[in-house]
Amino acid sequence: MAELRVGIVGASGYGGGELLRLCLAHPQLEVTQVTSERFRGRGVGTVHPNLRRRCALEFRAAADLRPCDLLFLCLPHGESSPRIDEFRALAPRIVDLSADFRLRSAADYVSWYGWHHPRPELLGSFVYGIPELHREAMRTAPWISSAGCNATAVILALWPLARAGMLGAPGLVIDLKVGSSEGGRSAGAASHHPERSHCLRTYKASGHRHGAEMIQELGLAEDYPLRVTVTAVELVRGILATCHVPVPPGLTERDIWRLYRAAYGDEPFLRLVREREGNYRFPEPKILWGSNGCDIGFELDARGGRLVVISALDNLMKGAAGQALQAANLQHGFSETTGLDFFGLHPV
Amino acid sequence: MAELRVGIVGASGYGGGELLRLCLAHPQLEVTQVTSERFRGRGVGTVHPNLRRRCALEFRAAADLRPCDLLFLCLPHGESSPRIDEFRALAPRIVDLSADFRLRSAADYVSWYGWHHPRPELLGSFVYGIPELHREAMRTAPWISSAGCNATAVILALWPLARAGMLGAPGLVIDLKVGSSEGGRSAGAASHHPERSHCLRTYKASGHRHGAEMIQELGLAEDYPLRVTVTAVELVRGILATCHVPVPPGLTERDIWRLYRAAYGDEPFLRLVREREGNYRFPEPKILWGSNGCDIGFELDARGGRLVVISALDNLMKGAAGQALQAANLQHGFSETTGLDFFGLHPV
Amino acid sequence: MAELRVGIVGASGYGGGELLRLCLAHPQLEVTQVTSERFRGRGVGTVHPNLRRRCALEFRAAADLRPCDLLFLCLPHGESSPRIDEFRALAPRIVDLSADFRLRSAADYVSWYGWHHPRPELLGSFVYGIPELHREAMRTAPWISSAGCNATAVILALWPLARAGMLGAPGLVIDLKVGSSEGGRSAGAASHHPERSHCLRTYKASGHRHGAEMIQELGLAEDYPLRVTVTAVELVRGILATCHVPVPPGLTERDIWRLYRAAYGDEPFLRLVREREGNYRFPEPKILWGSNGCDIGFELDARGGRLVVISALDNLMKGAAGQALQAANLQHGFSETTGLDFFGLHPV
Amino acid sequence: MAELRVGIVGASGYGGGELLRLCLAHPQLEVTQVTSERFRGRGVGTVHPNLRRRCALEFRAAADLRPCDLLFLCLPHGESSPRIDEFRALAPRIVDLSADFRLRSAADYVSWYGWHHPRPELLGSFVYGIPELHREAMRTAPWISSAGCNATAVILALWPLARAGMLGAPGLVIDLKVGSSEGGRSAGAASHHPERSHCLRTYKASGHRHGAEMIQELGLAEDYPLRVTVTAVELVRGILATCHVPVPPGLTERDIWRLYRAAYGDEPFLRLVREREGNYRFPEPKILWGSNGCDIGFELDARGGRLVVISALDNLMKGAAGQALQAANLQHGFSETTGLDFFGLHPV
Repeated sequence: MAELRVGIVGASGYGGGELLRLCLAHPQLEVTQVTSERFRGRGVGTVHPNLRRRCALEFRAAADLRPCDLLFLCLPHGESSPRIDEFRALAPRIVDLSADFRLRSAADYVSWYGWHHPRPELLGSFVYGIPELHREAMRTAPWISSAGCNATAVILALWPLARAGMLGAPGLVIDLKVGSSEGGRSAGAASHHPERSHCLRTYKASGHRHGAEMIQELGLAEDYPLRVTVTAVELVRGILATCHVPVPPGLTERDIWRLYRAAYGDEPFLRLVREREGNYRFPEPKILWGSNGCDIGFELDARGGRLVVISALDNLMKGAAGQALQAANLQHGFSETTGLDFFGLHPV
Repeated sequence: MAELRVGIVGASGYGGGELLRLCLAHPQLEVTQVTSERFRGRGVGTVHPNLRRRCALEFRAAADLRPCDLLFLCLPHGESSPRIDEFRALAPRIVDLSADFRLRSAADYVSWYGWHHPRPELLGSFVYGIPELHREAMRTAPWISSAGCNATAVILALWPLARAGMLGAPGLVIDLKVGSSEGGRSAGAASHHPERSHCLRTYKASGHRHGAEMIQELGLAEDYPLRVTVTAVELVRGILATCHVPVPPGLTERDIWRLYRAAYGDEPFLRLVREREGNYRFPEPKILWGSNGCDIGFELDARGGRLVVISALDNLMKGAAGQALQAANLQHGFSETTGLDFFGLHPV
Repeated sequence: MAELRVGIVGASGYGGGELLRLCLAHPQLEVTQVTSERFRGRGVGTVHPNLRRRCALEFRAAADLRPCDLLFLCLPHGESSPRIDEFRALAPRIVDLSADFRLRSAADYVSWYGWHHPRPELLGSFVYGIPELHREAMRTAPWISSAGCNATAVILALWPLARAGMLGAPGLVIDLKVGSSEGGRSAGAASHHPERSHCLRTYKASGHRHGAEMIQELGLAEDYPLRVTVTAVELVRGILATCHVPVPPGLTERDIWRLYRAAYGDEPFLRLVREREGNYRFPEPKILWGSNGCDIGFELDARGGRLVVISALDNLMKGAAGQALQAANLQHGFSETTGLDFFGLHPV
Repeated sequence: MAELRVGIVGASGYGGGELLRLCLAHPQLEVTQVTSERFRGRGVGTVHPNLRRRCALEFRAAADLRPCDLLFLCLPHGESSPRIDEFRALAPRIVDLSADFRLRSAADYVSWYGWHHPRPELLGSFVYGIPELHREAMRTAPWISSAGCNATAVILALWPLARAGMLGAPGLVIDLKVGSSEGGRSAGAASHHPERSHCLRTYKASGHRHGAEMIQELGLAEDYPLRVTVTAVELVRGILATCHVPVPPGLTERDIWRLYRAAYGDEPFLRLVREREGNYRFPEPKILWGSNGCDIGFELDARGGRLVVISALDNLMKGAAGQALQAANLQHGFSETTGLDFFGLHPV
C-alpha cells in the first residue's frame, strides 16, 4: 500500500517524540520530515534516545517544511493558530495536538486561557479529538484538534453518564493525579529532580484550563460549577482521574454497568475494570504505559450518595500522541488500531 | 529530672519503631522494655536498622512485661481491647495507637469495622488523641487513644470549618493520597515492590473506616453522607488530604484565613501554608518526613462554589508515633514539643 | 502462514507473563495453553492486568498440558530438569528460561548452585541462549536454555573483548545494578515496598551464580578470579552492568570501537552508545523498558589502565522473555526480530 | 552558655540549607546572617520549605555580611578562594564546604580540575575536613575545608586498609552510586524529572575529581591508577561506595574486622554493619537520610582475591553539612555530636 508522507512539527518535545515513535512503526505512514528550531540539524536519536538507530531523520526548521499528506502539529499552546494557514498550505490533513483549536467558543479562550484567539472563525472547523465521541466526524475531517490529556481522562470517565443526563446536578468533584511528563520537555525549577521527586503537589487547586474542554464535551452548562483539582505525583507518565459524581438514591451498580457497557462495549481502546481481588481492582496508569488504552472503573457509594468513577491512561499516549494517531487513522480510513497495538507492560 | 519508665507493646512494627526512636531521644523518658512476639530475643537494631548501636534493648514477649510508668500500645487493631485490663494493671498511663478506643460508640464499631467491641463500657474513658482538639482533657487523662493517620489529616484540615458551623451541608468530598508505610510491616502480594511501585491505586473508593473518626470529631450527623476516597501513591511516607468543601457564595479567602488563624495560630505543630510562587505553594508531605508537623493550606474556588483545603503530614509521625508522643507529653506535664523538634529535610 | 501452537509452562510469573504478551502479538505463534498450579482456572488477565481483554486463556495445571509445537519453560530454577522427559514428550522444541540447562558442566552446578543436577547427560544437548553468540547452533537446536539476565548483560558487554583475547588477565571487576523484578513474583520481607523502596542494597557482594555462565561463555579459565557484585536499586526493570576491564597501555578507543563494531555492527538488537552530550551519553536501561535491545558503551580510562564497558538491558526482555523469543524465532526459521520490534519509551 | 554568632554564605543551596537547619537546632550556635545573591531579601522559608516558621532570617547579599564568630562557606567551587581574604576578615574561624582548599597541591588543581588556584600559598593552611582522620588538627584549626561527599564515602571505607598498608597494589576499583541532590540546586536538562527519574546513568565513567582527595588522604602514590566510576541512581539523597580491593591470599574476615574495629570502634558517627539476615545486611544510605552517620561493611571474596568494602552515607549530611558541623564542633571545643544526634528514619 502506498504510504502517506507525514510531517511532525515540534518533534523534539515529548508528545512529538512519541508520535514519531508510533509513526515509525505504522505500516501506512512514512515520516518524511520532523521539525525543531532548537535542535535543527541534529539527528532525532540525540533527543529521543529510544529512537537511536531506528530513525535516520534530522530535525529541520519549520520554515523548511515541504508539502506532505499529513501534518501533526506538536507546538506549544498558542503557536499553531497564528501559523495555521502556512500549515494548511502544506498538507491537506492536519492533526493539532495543542489546545489552539479544541474549544468551539472564542470567548472560552478568553475566560479559561486569558487569550484572544487569533483565528476565531476557524474554531468550528476542527473536530474535537476524542474518537470515542466523534468517530464519524473524524472520517471526513481535514482538521482535527487532539484533546487535552487531563480532559481525555475525565471526559471518557464521565461521558456515559453525561449522555444519560446524569451529570447536570452540582456537586461533581474531579480529583486528578498526574505525572511529570505532562509538563513537557522544558526543564525548570519545578521539575528539578530533587524538588519534583516524591512530590504530592497541588499543581492546580482550582481552575485548570482543561475544565473548558470537559464542560464543552460533557454538555454541561457554561456556568456549571465544575470542581477540578490537579495533584502532581511521583510518576513520569500517567493520569488517574477520580470523579466523585453525586447520584440519586436507588441507582444500582447494575444500572451503571449497563450505561458503560452500552457506551464502550465495542471500543477497542477502552476497558471496564473492576476486579474482586488482586492488586488491580480499579484502573491504574502504570500498566498502560506505552499503550493507547484508557481503563475505566467505578464504585457506587450508597452511603455517600455518589458514584466514584475512576479512569487511567498514559498522558503521552491516549492523552496525546496515541490518541492523535488514532484520530489520523480514522481520518485516512485506516484501521483505527493500526500502530497502536502495544498492550502495556507488567510489572513496571 | 527523674525519667519515666516507658514500655512499648508491639515495637517491631513501623509505628512502634518510630515511637522507640523518638523516645530514645526524649530527655524525660527511658524505654525499659519493648515487646514483639515474633522477634523476641532479638535486638531492636536487627528489625529497625536505623537504631543499630543507638539502643541495646531486646524484644521480649508481652507476657514478660513488668510494671512501668507509661505504656504505648502499638498492636494491630482489635488486639489491645481484649487485653486492656492486663495493660492497665502494668502502668498508670496508656497511649493506645490502635483503633480500639477511638470511637465513643460501640455501634460505630459494628457499622464501620464489622466488629463487636469487647469492652464497650470503656469507650468513654479514652481521650481521642488529637492534641489540637483535646489538649486540656489530655493533661489529666490516664488513657489516650491516638488518632488514625488519615483521620488526623482530614480532621485537622477541616476542624476550623467545623467549629464555625461550615461543614454540615452535603457535598463534602475528601480525596486522600497515601504512602505505603500505612499498610504496616507485613509483606504481602499488594506490597510486593514490582506491584506497588509507580502505583496510583484506588485503595478504598468509598467507606474507609477512618470516616467514623472524621464524623465523630468534626461533629457531623451520624448519617452524614461522607465521601472519602483513598488512593495509594508511590511514596513510603506521607498523606495528602484534598478536601473539597462546598461553601456559600460571598465567602472570601480573608474570612477563611481568619478562621484558620484563630484555630491554629498558636499551635506548635501546625503551619498555614500558602505561597505565591515556588514549588511549595501548598502543603506537601515530603518536607515533613520525620517531623510531627501538619501543614494546611487552601484555595477558594469561587466558580466551583467550594473551598479546597489541603493538609499534609507524615503518617508515621503526626499520623501515629509523633502524635502519640505529643499526647504523652501533655499527659505527663512535659513541654508538648519535647522530643518532637525535628524539622524535616529538604530536599528529599 | 500456519501458526505454531505454543505452550508456556509457569506463565503466572513475570518472565512467563512477558513471554505470553510477546507471543500474543507474534503473527506466527498461537498460544494454546498456559500453566500455573497456583492460579489454575483463573484467566490470565487476573494475574497480568495488562493482558485483560487481550487474551481469553485460563491457566491450567501442568499435568493437563497437551502436545504442541513449542514449549517455553518458565519454572523456578531446579524444576524443569527433573521433568524434562515429560516436556520433551509434549513438544519437539523447547526453550527453557530457567538455569537448569545453562551450564555444560555438572560440576559447576555443584560448585555454583550447591546442587546435584538430576540429568547431567543432557547438559550438552541445550544450546546456550544468547543468539548473538550461538545463532547458527540455534537454527537447528531442538532445545535451548535461555541465558540469565545478569549474565546476558555482562557477556554481551565483554564478548568482543573475550574473543580478541583481552580478558584473561586478572583484575576484571563487574559491578551490576539491578531492578526488583529480577526477584520474581513472590512477595517477601525483602520486597515489601517500604523496605525495598529507595534501596541501594548490596544484594550479592560476591559469588553471584551467574558468574558460572560468564566464565563459560567468555572462555575464562575455570578458576578465573571473577569479581562480581550485585546491587539492588530503586527500579522495577533494568540492569546496568559496569565492567572495569584492565587493559594494556597503548590501547586506543579507536581500537575498541573496531572490536565492538566488528562483533556487533550487524546485530539487530545491540546498539553501541556513546554520545558527546545530552543525558544519554552511555547506555541506560530505562529507555529499553519493554524492548529486546541491549545497549553497550565504553570509555577508556588511560590513567586507571582500564576500559569501562557499560551495558544496559531490560531484565525481563533481553534478560528473559525477549531473548527467549528471539531464540525461538531462530529455532523455527522466522525472522529473528518478529514480535520484538518495540523500541522502548521516552520519557519514562 | 554564650552562643557563637554564625554566618552561612551561599545559604540558598542544598548544602547551605541543611547547614542552616542543623545550626538552628544547635544549642551553642546562633545563625545571625545568611547570604544569597539570587534570593536576597526573601525569607529562608520561601527557599527551604522545611524551615518555614522555624527561622525568621532573610537572605542578604554577601557584600552585606558583618563580622561574626564562624563563617560557613557554601559557595560553588571556585568562588571562595578568590574572596577568602574578605571572609577571613569577617570571622576568626571558617569552614569551607567547597573544593577550593581541599587539595594540598596546587598542581593537583590543574590536573584534576583544569584550574589554576588563585591562592596556592594558603593550601596548607586548611585542615582537610574528615574528623575521623584529622580530629586533633581540627581542635586548633582556624580554617577547615570540608571534604567532598563522594570522597568522604570512599576515604572512610578504605582508610583502615590504607593505614595498614593494604592499598598500594594496583587493581582497586571504586564504583559509586549517587543521588540527584549531589548536583545541587540548579535546574537543568539533566535534572529534569522525566529525564532523571529511573535513571541508572553513568555520570562519570572515569576521572571523577574527587579522586584527587582519595589519593591525597589515602596516601596513594601521585600516579596511582585509581579507577573510579560514578553512576547516578534514582535517589535524591545518598551515596553507596562499592570498593573492590585486591587482597593477598590468606587474609581472613577476622583480620579485617580487627583493622576496622581498631580504626573506628570508638567513632560516634561510624558503624560497622554486617548482618547475617534481614534486608539490611550491608550499609544502605536510605536509613541514614538526615543522619550524620556513615555505615561501613565488607565481605571477603576469597575466590575473587578481593575484599568488597561498602560504605553508605547521606551526601548532604556526612557528605556535606553534617560533617562541616562536626568539624566546627571540634574547632570550637563543643561536644562533637552536638546538633547531630538525629538517627535516621525507618522505613523511608
